[in-house]
Order: sequence, then C-alpha cells, then structure tokens
Amino acid sequence: MREVAILGVGMTRFGELWEMSLRNMFAEAALAAIDDAGVDHIDSMYVGSMSSGLFVHQEHIAAMLADYLGVAGIPSTRVESACASGGLAVRHALFEVASGASDIVLAGGVEKMTDGADATDALASAADQEYEAFHGITFPGLYAFIANAHMEKYGTTREQLADVAVKNHDHGSMNPRAQFPFKLTRETVMNSTMVAEPLRLLDCSPVTDGAAAVIVASMDVAQKMDRPIVKVIASGAATGAIAMHSRKDPTTIPAVGLAAERAFKQADLTPEKIDVAEVHDCFTIAELVVTEEMGFVELGKSGEAVSAGETRLGGRIPINTSGGLKSKGHPVGASGTAQIIEVVEQLRGDIGERQVEGARIGLTQNMGGSGASCVVHILEGVS
Amino acid sequence: MREVAILGVGMTRFGELWEMSLRNMFAEAALAAIDDAGVDHIDSMYVGSMSSGLFVHQEHIAAMLADYLGVAGIPSTRVESACASGGLAVRHALFEVASGASDIVLAGGVEKMTDGADATDALASAADQEYEAFHGITFPGLYAFIANAHMEKYGTTREQLADVAVKNHDHGSMNPRAQFPFKLTRETVMNSTMVAEPLRLLDCSPVTDGAAAVIVASMDVAQKMDRPIVKVIASGAATGAIAMHSRKDPTTIPAVGLAAERAFKQADLTPEKIDVAEVHDCFTIAELVVTEEMGFVELGKSGEAVSAGETRLGGRIPINTSGGLKSKGHPVGASGTAQIIEVVEQLRGDIGERQVEGARIGLTQNMGGSGASCVVHILEGVS
Repeated sequence: MREVAILGVGMTRFGELWEMSLRNMFAEAALAAIDDAGVDHIDSMYVGSMSSGLFVHQEHIAAMLADYLGVAGIPSTRVESACASGGLAVRHALFEVASGASDIVLAGGVEKMTDGADATDALASAADQEYEAFHGITFPGLYAFIANAHMEKYGTTREQLADVAVKNHDHGSMNPRAQFPFKLTRETVMNSTMVAEPLRLLDCSPVTDGAAAVIVASMDVAQKMDRPIVKVIASGAATGAIAMHSRKDPTTIPAVGLAAERAFKQADLTPEKIDVAEVHDCFTIAELVVTEEMGFVELGKSGEAVSAGETRLGGRIPINTSGGLKSKGHPVGASGTAQIIEVVEQLRGDIGERQVEGARIGLTQNMGGSGASCVVHILEGVS
Repeated sequence: MREVAILGVGMTRFGELWEMSLRNMFAEAALAAIDDAGVDHIDSMYVGSMSSGLFVHQEHIAAMLADYLGVAGIPSTRVESACASGGLAVRHALFEVASGASDIVLAGGVEKMTDGADATDALASAADQEYEAFHGITFPGLYAFIANAHMEKYGTTREQLADVAVKNHDHGSMNPRAQFPFKLTRETVMNSTMVAEPLRLLDCSPVTDGAAAVIVASMDVAQKMDRPIVKVIASGAATGAIAMHSRKDPTTIPAVGLAAERAFKQADLTPEKIDVAEVHDCFTIAELVVTEEMGFVELGKSGEAVSAGETRLGGRIPINTSGGLKSKGHPVGASGTAQIIEVVEQLRGDIGERQVEGARIGLTQNMGGSGASCVVHILEGVS
C-alpha cells in the first residue's frame, strides 16, 4: 500500500445554519479544504452522510455535490455508516489513494439536520429498526441503558458524567467553529432537563448542521507541495452487534475495541503513545466507555480519570480538545471528518489556545449508532 | 494495483418478496456468494443500497447486515449512488483488495421497495430535490423528456422503444430469477397504460425487492481456489449534471460516456471487443441512449439496431441477456451487482439457454438517477 497524507482541511461552522442548505455547506467545506491543500484539482471524492434521505429527502448526494462543487465528471461516492459516515469517507479515500487508482481525493461529510425532519426519528434509524426503534427506544434511551449499567458495575457517578460535559465545553469555548462555545458547571449539567435517566439535556450532543472535508493525497504528491504534512499511519474499522440485546456486557462496545486494536497494530503503537485524541462523545457516557475501550484508561476507571483532569487539555491524554460532539456540535455525517480536522490542526501545531504542546501523534475514534460500527484513524505530523 | 477477480456470486430471485425482509434477502444472496466462492471467511464487506432509509426506515445497514450475516467484527460499509449503488459497492471492494488492505471482500446490493413506502417518491430523491423533485417531476417524467428529445432529434420511433422491452422480456423468459419472465409483443407494450408520454407501463422497469452479492478476491487468492476465475480488467466511474436543465443535450448522458471511456482505456479495449453486456435499462429509452454512449452503436442509430436484432441474443452485441432491469426487475441498490453476476455467469459459460457462445469479455453499465452517476466494469473470463 502507498503511504497517504492529509494535505488540506476545511469545515463550516457547526450550528443551526438556517441560511445554508446541504449543498452550500458541503461546498464551503470542500472549497476550504482544496484551498488549504493548494491543489488545482481532485481526482475523485467521497461524501459521508448518515441520512440525507430522511433529513432533506435527497439521496444521490455524491453526484449532486460533485456537480454543485463544479467538478462533475469525477467519480464520487457516498458512504454511510450512521454517525461513523464522516470517518469512513476518509477511510475509503485512503484505500483509493493507497491502491494507486488516484493521487488526490476529497473526503468529507455533511448533515443538514434542522430543516424540519423529526431528528430523533431519523437518528433512530441507526438502531435496529425491527428490534429496537420499532418498539420506541431512541438514542438517549440506548445510551441511558449503557450509563446505568456502567454506574451499577463500576460505581461511575452522576458527577463524573457531568465532568465530561464540563471538560468538553471548556475545550469548545476555545473553538470558534463550535455550536455551543460556552462553559458549563457541574451543577448546570446536573440540573438540566432530564432526557432519559440518568442522562440530562447537557449530557447529550446537539442536533447540528455542518460539513467538513479533507484532502487525502499520496505522500508523493504531498511532498511536492509546500504544506505541512500529516501522515495517516493507521485506519482500523470494525462492526459489532447492532441491537443492544445482543451484547454480552452493555458497559463495553466491542467494535470500538476491535477498531482500535487494528489501528494500533497497523501503526505499531500503544495507547500511551497518543498525544491527542478526538473520540465519539455523542453522550457523556459514550466518551467514558470509549476512553476505556481505546485503552486510554483502565476498564471502569474513566469516570475517575475525567474528574481528575487526566483527559483535559494539559492532562495526561487530552481528549476532545475541539469541544467534541458535545460542545462543537454533531452534524452526524460530518462529525468523523471534523474529528480528523481537529487532529490534523493539532499536529500542525497551529490550532491556537487549545494547542496540545508538542503533539506529534493523534487519534480519532468515530462510531455509528450505539457502537455497531467504528472507525479509528491514527495520524502523525511529519513536517 | 493488485489484480482482482470475482470468485463467487449469489442472488435472490427478484420480485415482490413479501416473505422476506431486507436483512433476509441480503443474507440469502451473501451466503450464496460465499458458498459459490468456496471461501471460509470474508475480510470485509460493502453494501449498496439507494434508500434503505426512505424505503424501510433503516440506515446503518452495513453494520446491521454484517451482524445478521454472522460476521460482526469485520469492517462493513454502505455505499450509495442511487441506482448505481450496487455497481459502486463492487468498485470499492476492488479498491480495498487492489490496495492490499484485504484479500477477500463481499460486495453486494439490496433494496426492499415493496414494504409500504411511496416508491415513486423515494426514487425521486435521486433527482435534484430542490430543482426537480420539489416541482413534481418523477423519473418516468425525466426519461420521457429524454425519449421525446431522442425521437425528435434522431427519428427514433415508438415501435423501436417497444422493441427494447420485447427483446429484454424474451431474454428474461429464460431467467428463472426474473420478476417478469414472460414474453411481450410490440403491440402489448404499445397498448399498455400511458405513464409519461411517450413512455407506457411496459417501457418502465418495475418496483422490486431483491439482493445480489459477489466475492471480490485478489488474483493470488483466486488462483488457489478450484473455481472458474473471472478477472475484473477495468472499473470506470463518472458523474455528470444531476438536474436535466443543466445538460446541453438531453439525448446524451455524459457520465455514461465518460465512465465507459475510462473503463475502455484501463482495459485497453474498444467496444467491438465486448462479447456480452448488461446495461441500465430502467426505461426502454435508457437502454437506447446508453447503448450509444457506450459506443456499441452510432449516435442516433440505437433504435434501428434494436429493431434489427443487433443487440439480441445471437446478434452482434447481445445486451441484457438477463432480461435487464425491465424483465428481471430493478431493486435499485441491487441491480448493479446483479448485472455483474449475469456477466460472470456468461463468462463462466454455464448460464444455460441464454448463453452467449464463446463469451470471453463482458461489460456492465450501471447508473444513478437520470444519469448523474455511472459505473462501468469490464470482466474477462480467464479459466
């Protein structure tokens, strides 16, 4: 396989972007990435979107967006794996470049969630329709189930869950693209509206519009450009049981552990070598569970770790310096690509006040639904 | 890039499969392909589906289907490009194997269209939602527009359109998997219900349930198995303007010509070298236009060619020996994969009474919407 780099990045602000349609958002992110990379063309493109069909009744968006971007003619493919769509788009661009079929590929994600669709209903289509969604459970309920099990098994506390939100909003307050760039206190989180016990409103990532895109290039091409190079040293993906009732232990998400294991093996690294990570905190409990699955903290110890500041900027392993899905926002198909952008900018060393000093190796973990699919990337700054 | 082969194929019968859900259909096709290939595992999988969200309110189907198939753990990705989804799934499996990341990959497509959704409305989401579908045009209308333009510009006749349906139903009558395996007369087609002038009911492919899957393997793996090998010698993909109003000439579909040009260049072949082809006849006029775009007949001469029997079994270039989308059925996300299955079985030489004698090189052409995306594969039987 050929070596591959991320050569350019671009994204919209995340939020309720009433003035922008799906195509406008994607074009803004894509043009910014092309501009940042300094390339004069792209060979093909990938678009991650969870449900442009249910959200805005538009399928076939890969072709539509190539057309709207002014590059009709090039191959363009949409990939979907619920909330892991944006991470998978980058993975498949990697395969295309690694195979030698293309040299410069755009990979991005987009979701327009606020145009009138029932967002909770559309999102529920990422769960097992016949065995879960049909019976009325939605994602807050599924993650509440995980939270209750984690609290029961490991003694994780309500305060520790709140501390995930507090940390991520602290980080997000330094991110001008974040949907909710304000700080929270533990008390505010714990007094917010109950959604699905024990998860309250401020334990949940928001409904968001946004797009993000990166330029994936062969190392040969990247080395000829006068741009900082961030190499992709691993891409691990995995699936697991889609329905919660099929899992042996609701406090674990096996697809996350498996994707991480594959990525660490490919990069020949251990979790201790990671300087900065973006993980999939769709709910506060999700960040705790995946932090354990990735091997960043011991099983059952993630609550203590977050409250002790280990995963905060300046801590042992800074997690979600962007603000995460929680504060930055979660336009579901775009989130995985946006995670990669945060890590690329960290490894370039030019991300401003939320910079992790000396960051050289970063990781992203993006998952779909309640964790039936997961994709993990490891990146290394090489210039 | 490593050389890649199709090692196994499997599909459901196409039709109104009231007794089967989306997951049942995909599992049946996938297990048949795995069995046919004789492999004991798959490294990863790709699923093409146009709109499992709008048809059965289930996204995240790549993970769900890996789980249901009993292979949860492996990476699994859904790809979507409207009715070209099934062809694109195979293309992306090729990239993964060609890159060296995997050796044995399952690629398939599935669509469950008869479970109660408004099929015409769901299909319209493959057109430009804001500029076409919102204003009320649906696919019969879009292709009627193409048909009228072709009749006006080239003198293509109503009888010639009917002859496409007659030929494909003749072929389909020999296909036990076809949804409508009966023969038609020109008169029956021309007297069927008007849908969108000049297209009548029997000019239109049906609404269909079905799934199809193939096993894509590296040539190294394929050569170790005691199975006939069909090599993939080219994969060309392209996009074009999504909205009809953006095209210079409605009688052409530029993405088809471009995808074909790329495929012929990669294979270093000309259209004359193709022994058998499956093309995207979602409407009778579509087969005529793409037959011209592929270079099988001269521009404007496709109507004459079909009426003269040039594209019939036994003719100069047999097209849609399976019955095509018209007679075999068109479960939109599965059709592109099913085209590849027909050509693989033709090149293996064991397809029964619809065998093209001595077929060595075959082609598939699969497109999305009114042609904004297209993927062309060229296959060669090597054993």
